[in-house]
Amino acid sequence: MRVIRLTLAYDGTGFRGWARQRDPDVRTVEGSLVGVLSRIARHDVRVSVAGRTDAGVHARGQVASFLTSSRLAPSRLQAATNAALAPEIVVVDARDAREGFDARFAATERGYRYGIDTAPVADPFTARYVWHRPAEMSIDRMRAAARHLVGEHDFTSFCRHPGPGKPTVRDVRRISVARAGSIISIRFDANAFLHQMVRALTGTLVAVGEGKVDPGSIPSILAAADRSAARGVAPPPGLPLERVVYGRRERR
Amino acid sequence: MRVIRLTLAYDGTGFRGWARQRDPDVRTVEGSLVGVLSRIARHDVRVSVAGRTDAGVHARGQVASFLTSSRLAPSRLQAATNAALAPEIVVVDARDAREGFDARFAATERGYRYGIDTAPVADPFTARYVWHRPAEMSIDRMRAAARHLVGEHDFTSFCRHPGPGKPTVRDVRRISVARAGSIISIRFDANAFLHQMVRALTGTLVAVGEGKVDPGSIPSILAAADRSAARGVAPPPGLPLERVVYGRRERR
Repeated sequence: MRVIRLTLAYDGTGFRGWARQRDPDVRTVEGSLVGVLSRIARHDVRVSVAGRTDAGVHARGQVASFLTSSRLAPSRLQAATNAALAPEIVVVDARDAREGFDARFAATERGYRYGIDTAPVADPFTARYVWHRPAEMSIDRMRAAARHLVGEHDFTSFCRHPGPGKPTVRDVRRISVARAGSIISIRFDANAFLHQMVRALTGTLVAVGEGKVDPGSIPSILAAADRSAARGVAPPPGLPLERVVYGRRERR
Repeated sequence: MRVIRLTLAYDGTGFRGWARQRDPDVRTVEGSLVGVLSRIARHDVRVSVAGRTDAGVHARGQVASFLTSSRLAPSRLQAATNAALAPEIVVVDARDAREGFDARFAATERGYRYGIDTAPVADPFTARYVWHRPAEMSIDRMRAAARHLVGEHDFTSFCRHPGPGKPTVRDVRRISVARAGSIISIRFDANAFLHQMVRALTGTLVAVGEGKVDPGSIPSILAAADRSAARGVAPPPGLPLERVVYGRRERR
């Protein structure tokens, strides 16, 4: 058996997230991908993935892996998958991975970028990929708040369904806030993220940027370990999973 | 009665073009816009438009005008229209125009830009807005061909339905070809365009860029005044109407 590693990009608009659901009529990225891979490999394929993206969330550098007995060259596998799924889901890269490689468990860092368009009027050409929020936002305030979020913290306040007994501590390694024209981009890098954590962090950073929450109140929001302490959840379209890191990486 | 002038941007993917059709179930940009404007103005509205874009073609700087007895401020009209139609169709600007202004007949120049992505693999985030054509293309050859197209010519060879007796001479004022990363952009400025003319010109320029047609053969393709002389029609997604010019303008 070989392990194949895929790098994927997808427009999440038309999918109910990554994870395959029991109802086969629910379109998911995993369901679409596994269906095509199984047909190409001529056996049932199960994939492991670095980031289980939510409904409507996009990816540019998602990584998935699977075991196969097929002898097809990775480039042929990539071409056949793209012929069936592109451009909605695209295999950007396909290669043989080392024995035992698992895209989910081997990942040491995930990077998301959230885009907010603050222009007065929405842009039809970016509307699927940003959150249109025509408001004044202070980048400086958002950066000040972000500094309190970086580091190892219990992020229960920024998680939708922590699940009883599941670990809720994550190591946020970097948050950067940048503005280009009317677009504000927030980059988040962490060892891993909890459910809806990036969108919840973005919701609070936006509230800070708009002056509704004080940057200095972040430590108490974290300490509350209660979701009602945070300020709303940003909608999915603005969020692509940008990249996954494997192997060692310097901390900041 | 007042004349209102609207600047519009729209994602043409979900529309069968600008022009309203008899069948009310066919989604068109004009049909959607007129329905909302009539409701806001409280009377039947008829619009005049600078560029009757085809099915699937986008616009960033489309201009439309209409007569109304409504006394609503243009900014209110813009907000109400956007509340109903954005982000698929967006009113970028709304203002009172001079008496007798007509967006179609007053326009002196239209500018389109066609985008081609030559990367080996499609990008899910631009797929709706470019033509994915993974091929080697020579910008220099395309520019050489473009020089033969600039000027006043009979463009029958690049028109889908000239219509008997309809004028087929157009004044192409500029064509520029540029590359940024894997994207090749072709800008076309002319007094006006025939039906499918930009996509037909693009199809031939791409054939030239790929080495299938000689740049020096453009004059004979024009002289043939026969559509079969040209080389294919590029698909709609790559094409947005960028801008419309009113009033005098320097030639090149």
